[in-house]
Amino acid sequence: MNNVWKLCLGTPDPLSSLLALSGATLDPSRLSGGACPLAAARIETERVRDRFVLRIPLSAGERLYGLGLSFEKMRVDYAARHLRCDHYAGRDTGRTHAPVPFYVSDAGYGVFVDTAEVASFYMGGTVRTDALNPPPELNRGRDDNWSCNQRAEFVEVSHIRADERAARDELAAFERHGLKIDVLGLEPGWQSGSYPCTFEWDRARFADPAQFVRDMAGQGVRVNLWENMYVSRSARIYRDLLPYCGSHQVWGGAVPDFTLEAAREIVLRQHREDHIGVSGYKIDECDGYDQWLWPDHARFPSGASATAIRNVYGARLQRMFYDDFRARGKRTYGLVRASNAGAASLPFCLYNDCYSFGQYLTGMATAGFCGCLWVPEIRDASSAEEWVRRFQLGALSPMLMLNAWANGAKPWQYPEVESIIADTIRLRRALLPYLYTAFYRYHSEGIPPFRAPVMDDPTLTGREDASSGALDGTANPYELRAARDVTDQFLIGDALMAAPMLPGQTEREVVLPRGVWHDFYTGEALRGTVRYACPLERIPLFVKSGGIIPLLREDGTLEARCYGERGETTLYDDDGETFAFERGEYALIRLAFSRPPESAPQSDVEITAHNFETAYKRVTFVPVG
Amino acid sequence: MNNVWKLCLGTPDPLSSLLALSGATLDPSRLSGGACPLAAARIETERVRDRFVLRIPLSAGERLYGLGLSFEKMRVDYAARHLRCDHYAGRDTGRTHAPVPFYVSDAGYGVFVDTAEVASFYMGGTVRTDALNPPPELNRGRDDNWSCNQRAEFVEVSHIRADERAARDELAAFERHGLKIDVLGLEPGWQSGSYPCTFEWDRARFADPAQFVRDMAGQGVRVNLWENMYVSRSARIYRDLLPYCGSHQVWGGAVPDFTLEAAREIVLRQHREDHIGVSGYKIDECDGYDQWLWPDHARFPSGASATAIRNVYGARLQRMFYDDFRARGKRTYGLVRASNAGAASLPFCLYNDCYSFGQYLTGMATAGFCGCLWVPEIRDASSAEEWVRRFQLGALSPMLMLNAWANGAKPWQYPEVESIIADTIRLRRALLPYLYTAFYRYHSEGIPPFRAPVMDDPTLTGREDASSGALDGTANPYELRAARDVTDQFLIGDALMAAPMLPGQTEREVVLPRGVWHDFYTGEALRGTVRYACPLERIPLFVKSGGIIPLLREDGTLEARCYGERGETTLYDDDGETFAFERGEYALIRLAFSRPPESAPQSDVEITAHNFETAYKRVTFVPVG
Repeated sequence: MNNVWKLCLGTPDPLSSLLALSGATLDPSRLSGGACPLAAARIETERVRDRFVLRIPLSAGERLYGLGLSFEKMRVDYAARHLRCDHYAGRDTGRTHAPVPFYVSDAGYGVFVDTAEVASFYMGGTVRTDALNPPPELNRGRDDNWSCNQRAEFVEVSHIRADERAARDELAAFERHGLKIDVLGLEPGWQSGSYPCTFEWDRARFADPAQFVRDMAGQGVRVNLWENMYVSRSARIYRDLLPYCGSHQVWGGAVPDFTLEAAREIVLRQHREDHIGVSGYKIDECDGYDQWLWPDHARFPSGASATAIRNVYGARLQRMFYDDFRARGKRTYGLVRASNAGAASLPFCLYNDCYSFGQYLTGMATAGFCGCLWVPEIRDASSAEEWVRRFQLGALSPMLMLNAWANGAKPWQYPEVESIIADTIRLRRALLPYLYTAFYRYHSEGIPPFRAPVMDDPTLTGREDASSGALDGTANPYELRAARDVTDQFLIGDALMAAPMLPGQTEREVVLPRGVWHDFYTGEALRGTVRYACPLERIPLFVKSGGIIPLLREDGTLEARCYGERGETTLYDDDGETFAFERGEYALIRLAFSRPPESAPQSDVEITAHNFETAYKRVTFVPVG
Repeated sequence: MNNVWKLCLGTPDPLSSLLALSGATLDPSRLSGGACPLAAARIETERVRDRFVLRIPLSAGERLYGLGLSFEKMRVDYAARHLRCDHYAGRDTGRTHAPVPFYVSDAGYGVFVDTAEVASFYMGGTVRTDALNPPPELNRGRDDNWSCNQRAEFVEVSHIRADERAARDELAAFERHGLKIDVLGLEPGWQSGSYPCTFEWDRARFADPAQFVRDMAGQGVRVNLWENMYVSRSARIYRDLLPYCGSHQVWGGAVPDFTLEAAREIVLRQHREDHIGVSGYKIDECDGYDQWLWPDHARFPSGASATAIRNVYGARLQRMFYDDFRARGKRTYGLVRASNAGAASLPFCLYNDCYSFGQYLTGMATAGFCGCLWVPEIRDASSAEEWVRRFQLGALSPMLMLNAWANGAKPWQYPEVESIIADTIRLRRALLPYLYTAFYRYHSEGIPPFRAPVMDDPTLTGREDASSGALDGTANPYELRAARDVTDQFLIGDALMAAPMLPGQTEREVVLPRGVWHDFYTGEALRGTVRYACPLERIPLFVKSGGIIPLLREDGTLEARCYGERGETTLYDDDGETFAFERGEYALIRLAFSRPPESAPQSDVEITAHNFETAYKRVTFVPVG
């Protein structure tokens, strides 16, 4: 393919190839040709004992991003990461839900290492003793420049121990509060046994599961089922599955080796028989901690290593469920706790337990670098204000999800902010046509719908914070230079940027990418770095000059909010349910406006429909500002 | 040796043997014989790909401790740890300054794995699919019992960018405040170049180093020099040392392979020539982080692996410096940032940067399990109260050290608590004979002078906190059972227990080991778990009934504080400078008292001197309470 170069070290093991999992849908013709930006002659390889070493040239001042889903930092230059699928324990170490062995440089290239094995990345901090151009030697006692670092998308509600009646009551309560739910997620207790799992309905709670799922569908609500893949001895499939399981249990359950077709087929057949009408899964606990999962020395019947199986377990499961839905002509959209490179094109969102607001927000910025959709779920809050801020963040993520299984939290639990929460959910719904188009671009062109601003504007690397590199005997004894990332803002689709307020904030700094941007609410033109204040009910949102943000009104018409002097955009629409779009059944709706200072405003809608009739026909253009 | 059993897997690599580093001084006759507490027949071994697997039987309810210096928890049952020498990043993961591959069970045995390689320990959380007695399967949806877990003495002051005059002025200031310093530590700037290091004096700052060191000695102050072992190109020894260095630099310096005699000899020769009269070293930054140290694929001239070299780097350096001092008949007492099993008998204390009061306190309890002396250094505080609490903790540790190189902090920097700090330092001095004896027992019998109370009373495992195992969707979504450790108390010597107050506390819970204990200050008899309140100037200290705590008064006499009805103890004394004690030149001072309720108090001193005249001849017995 144009612009893709490949280098093989040794004989690749097909069982640990991440690309083998991939079903990417990118159009290769969109990649134009060019010369390799890395001088091939300067790439070195070496074998040291049982390790393969690959040395890739790095220029002074290059900025590097990626190496998996991160929650603390975005830049990885100087970092050392041992990529290993893990629960994430609050620190960016390489142990994460999506340990994707891929990084990208602001010099205009990316490097992907196609291995599921635990790989170590030393990102320019290791200097060889025989280096041709070693960094200058400084004297800590005299040079103030000394530093130790040298160069080299839906609303979803979940619940536990609820039966069918409780689930219906829950839904009715949401309706009374004027809130629409798209997906109802059932947590472990829907099963006859869980932790370890049976994957079978608990008939005492759900007497007629198929009828229950149909009734929900009648109300426009899809059903999602929680699972982890550790199989109970009382599961119907246990005996058949056991020969295809690993040497060690997880939480009392057998661990299927899903590298094997036979294991996948046994599980899928039972799922198809028992889960009629179910729209998707939440695949939990396939990440780590070490003390929960199988040990590194576990054996699996496929012969693949325990470490490689761990690094692809979540990705392999995404592939398995997606392929099964696809074979039945149905789309799915699920949740998963682990992913990797081969799964970037699969419709699953990542989530975790850390619940740090700041880290959840950072995940929105970093996920695009590793081909992941990251969902900052909503569980609880210590104040009404935090409750609002968490809903605002969730509303601007790939999936607005309330995870209330443990505490039964309700959106209206803080009455004083109930109307703000309801408005936040309405804004999310109004943005669906815009988000759907952003996902279409992700599918067809690979542009992440949610991504760091630096992806669109490489100069936007944040303020260098002089004080953060200063010596502090307690907090910074090594005078670590802290090149600040802009980790608390993210782009959504082509024209929108969010800079959410953290709990406790009433104003914040916003770093705008180059060019003119507008306040989403007032249309005020802004540039550069600004202080931004807004009341609790607003999320700081900014629109690129020339941008059109279509909002879906409750009467089914579109309000096209226009910013700046002129602009155009194209919305994508299809049936939302099947793969008919692959046979060309979809519609493109081109929206354009201009309002030059001295002339009358003009606007235009042009619909190109391909065997699909879009509902987005009535558009009202609203110039903002 | 009695009570020691050995099992070999494959062919051990002498370069990565930790025991090869050891110079243990234990008297083997003190180990009485017995049967192996582990059924050898149940120990299993297996080779899985490139891993050796060792399976050691574990009984239900066994409590395990150890696996290196820890700062969060003490018990390691259910834990997974990958032992790797590292800077410690705030979490107990196995990455620590002393990744000692040893654990001990309350069933009465310990297991030591003699390897410097990164070894993975799965401490009873991995259940094989073919287990004979797997844990019972519970249903999370119905069973409330479900849980995811099925199962260094001196006062030392340091300073940066100071010259000889500044060092003398500093000392004078301490004298003006009535404070006696035993060791003056010079931080990097004493060298002509540092980070990387030259190991040579900066003659602009120290015109006549030998004279400076002699002058200090004249004032009773020893000099300690800060070093890390990454060698500057401008070091005199650079050229000679380079052939014995690894393939990668650290912080711009070459990394000597100290596995090689030649590398050690070059460095030691230069040190002996240049550092005349110096009493010891602070060996910094030999631990990690990955992004600072050599990569795992680095090559070293000895052929040992980069990972093994890293795990023993600190231990190897301790051995090197100790052997050199010993060859000259001089004792040393130093600081180091990394250690391992072979170094338990070497006179070095560990320290780090984390500066969490709670974690520093936990280190006092856990260090004994891994054969380390842990020093909670004092740098700074956000309040006078915290300043006092930090001095109190430091005063009861292996080394009372003020690390003021970055901020020039002084003990008297909070005038309102200056007298409390001075009294704290005086208490430390008064305890020296007691501490010295505790160190003698460490040397001769292997009993850690500072250790967790559970070491002496295995029933003391802390309160099981019911609430900590309860479901909390945000803080504890997995209903993790948290068997609480008593990590905030520690034993000192034979008869003393400290339960330091944390900043902000005015009272706390104290869990006393079995039997009767007494309040150090009042003699009040206490038992079991008590609430303890005391003013800022007091450290909660408890004495075992029958205990005698000798305090050295400023007039040189001993005040023997006696607790309970009767007791005896034996103090050890020697010249404190040389190895003459190995030739029998030392004194034992036996102290005994009795004060039965109806009889007159009696006390007795019996001195056994072996070619050494002790100063502890005048003893005043003081019954307390």
